[in-house]
Amino acid sequence: MAKASQTYSAGLIIRQKEPTNLETPFDQVDSYLTPTDLFYIRSHFAAPRLELASYQLRIDGAVRNPLSLSYQQLRDMPSETRVATLECAGNSRVFLIPQVAGAQWELGAVGNAEWTGVLLGALLERAGLEDDACEIVLEGADRGTPTEEPVPPGPISYARSLPRDKAIQREVLVAYQMNGRDLPQEHGYPVRAVVPGHYGMASVKWLTHVQAVREPFRGYWQTSDYGYWDYLDGKPVRRALGQMKLKSEIARPRVYETLAPNYVYPVFGAAWAGETEVTGIAVSTDGGQTWAEAEFLDPIQQHAWRRWKFDWLTPTEPGRYTLMARAKGANGNVQPDKHDPNYGSYVINHPLPIEVFVDDRTNRLV
Amino acid sequence: MAKASQTYSAGLIIRQKEPTNLETPFDQVDSYLTPTDLFYIRSHFAAPRLELASYQLRIDGAVRNPLSLSYQQLRDMPSETRVATLECAGNSRVFLIPQVAGAQWELGAVGNAEWTGVLLGALLERAGLEDDACEIVLEGADRGTPTEEPVPPGPISYARSLPRDKAIQREVLVAYQMNGRDLPQEHGYPVRAVVPGHYGMASVKWLTHVQAVREPFRGYWQTSDYGYWDYLDGKPVRRALGQMKLKSEIARPRVYETLAPNYVYPVFGAAWAGETEVTGIAVSTDGGQTWAEAEFLDPIQQHAWRRWKFDWLTPTEPGRYTLMARAKGANGNVQPDKHDPNYGSYVINHPLPIEVFVDDRTNRLV
Repeated sequence: MAKASQTYSAGLIIRQKEPTNLETPFDQVDSYLTPTDLFYIRSHFAAPRLELASYQLRIDGAVRNPLSLSYQQLRDMPSETRVATLECAGNSRVFLIPQVAGAQWELGAVGNAEWTGVLLGALLERAGLEDDACEIVLEGADRGTPTEEPVPPGPISYARSLPRDKAIQREVLVAYQMNGRDLPQEHGYPVRAVVPGHYGMASVKWLTHVQAVREPFRGYWQTSDYGYWDYLDGKPVRRALGQMKLKSEIARPRVYETLAPNYVYPVFGAAWAGETEVTGIAVSTDGGQTWAEAEFLDPIQQHAWRRWKFDWLTPTEPGRYTLMARAKGANGNVQPDKHDPNYGSYVINHPLPIEVFVDDRTNRLV
Repeated sequence: MAKASQTYSAGLIIRQKEPTNLETPFDQVDSYLTPTDLFYIRSHFAAPRLELASYQLRIDGAVRNPLSLSYQQLRDMPSETRVATLECAGNSRVFLIPQVAGAQWELGAVGNAEWTGVLLGALLERAGLEDDACEIVLEGADRGTPTEEPVPPGPISYARSLPRDKAIQREVLVAYQMNGRDLPQEHGYPVRAVVPGHYGMASVKWLTHVQAVREPFRGYWQTSDYGYWDYLDGKPVRRALGQMKLKSEIARPRVYETLAPNYVYPVFGAAWAGETEVTGIAVSTDGGQTWAEAEFLDPIQQHAWRRWKFDWLTPTEPGRYTLMARAKGANGNVQPDKHDPNYGSYVINHPLPIEVFVDDRTNRLV
């Protein structure tokens, strides 16, 4: 029974039904740009429905000329297009042992898309950003009461800040298109931020408010959630997650696939980093004891992933084998061996074990 | 980039890494018998490693002739083969709103396989089951301390009881083969129970002990876990889950697939029940407002699922559509409209909404 030919996508894996948290079946990834329908969906609250006719983007706070722009005014500004990989900071959480709270993302809370919009920097320039503004708060129209401790006193809008220096970089967009079409509802229609190099939580969807502030923003999603423990003179201090860490993932084979012995299997995956470049990729087929170089399929392009391939001559010996991939960055760093507990349930960027079986199927019923 | 041809299975979706809880990607289901590699894995604790040479199955309690059988002795007994659908009682839990605790199974904690072994009834007869034995306790070699309240005082073995009348039915097996080959490690090697018609928790894996008892067994997995609330003269009483309820699932399209308008899409799925027969199957493409009959692909075979198909002429109007399937049983019952809260986080057998998009892709980038 063949699949219908008139399907455009493989659909998504449900990790949480409401709010909508759906994962890309990562073994279905092939193309450099993740098709919009296959792109993961991460929501904190129900998706707000914004109307184009009444949409306004306010830009205020530490600016000389507060603005409010309609959707058409945004579209009339010069547009820029960027390719950027977005990864949820909790991607691969299901690999943490023991299990931790939160959506149990496997490999597919990451995707690479082409985004079109206006430069956030251009908007801030037009509004006359004050010299003493240190951060830019991006606020979405999605709203509710979050549940992680410490819980705020009432409903709040989703909001995250960017350091001023990042916000004015030419990669940061206020975007209205994804892969050449209007943003779908659940990807932030009609307007979202896209912050290449940072974990997905920075790319605020349903963006309606940009506020320049003179002191670091300590909102819920920079302290309670999406935070980590750093050390200042030996004392733990709470910081907000920002840049994506160096990471690679194996798309194929998938966990618990069964492969034929003594065949060349093209192990396939992707690797990415935040602000550095991915320059090397190695694969282990013995659980990390030995590593061999894999081959990149895409050139270096900052903020975008590189797909890679490794031709594995499967063992003649049936058994269970553990595959891992490990990326190297331009700075010489490689992925860490283990998850850093200071990141709590986030930043899971150690080489992830993909367990597969090699088995000769001659004489097998099913 | 084509998939490697020398892959035998689509792999599994990780719902929990340890203990191993892996789900069938249900959109990959095609055949009547679920290939072993594609069959979901449900574990309570780490899989015990049992050696064939030292394996013993004890049969004792309320019997006249307590027995202990080696693996070879079991294999030397007359064998029987049954096709049975096993579904985890928590399958489709991710569809419950609000979210509840437990592995967030979507559609794939169910499968249909061919099982071979000896009749549990034959073993009980050989042991001389006493007339006053009311239940048969099946105990596995997997062991640990469960976490749901009320928590037992220390580590316990996984154990479940069957009513005597069910245990002696000719469908209940002490099985050593699945789909014609030895049981894989994570499916209970070397020996497991297979209890057709009951939720998967009854089919105890790594079976090492069969104990006939004279009073109803009130173990952890019959009271704390895998229990539900029933009413006795208006008073809630705790009972153990048993028979699978009538249910149907849509395998294709998958959630958030995008389909072309004005094409015939073959909606495909399966339907099953515990002790009744599935005699009808209807599909709705408008979220349950209207229903149309679908077509069965398999005949009625007790305890096994029936695959079905429905040719949907997709709308010409782009938009979001909600598909549902609803089975009818031989007793005239249909699936309930809603989840019954007395079942807690189990028995999710209402028609499950599968949201898809219809979209014309002319002029689309990706």
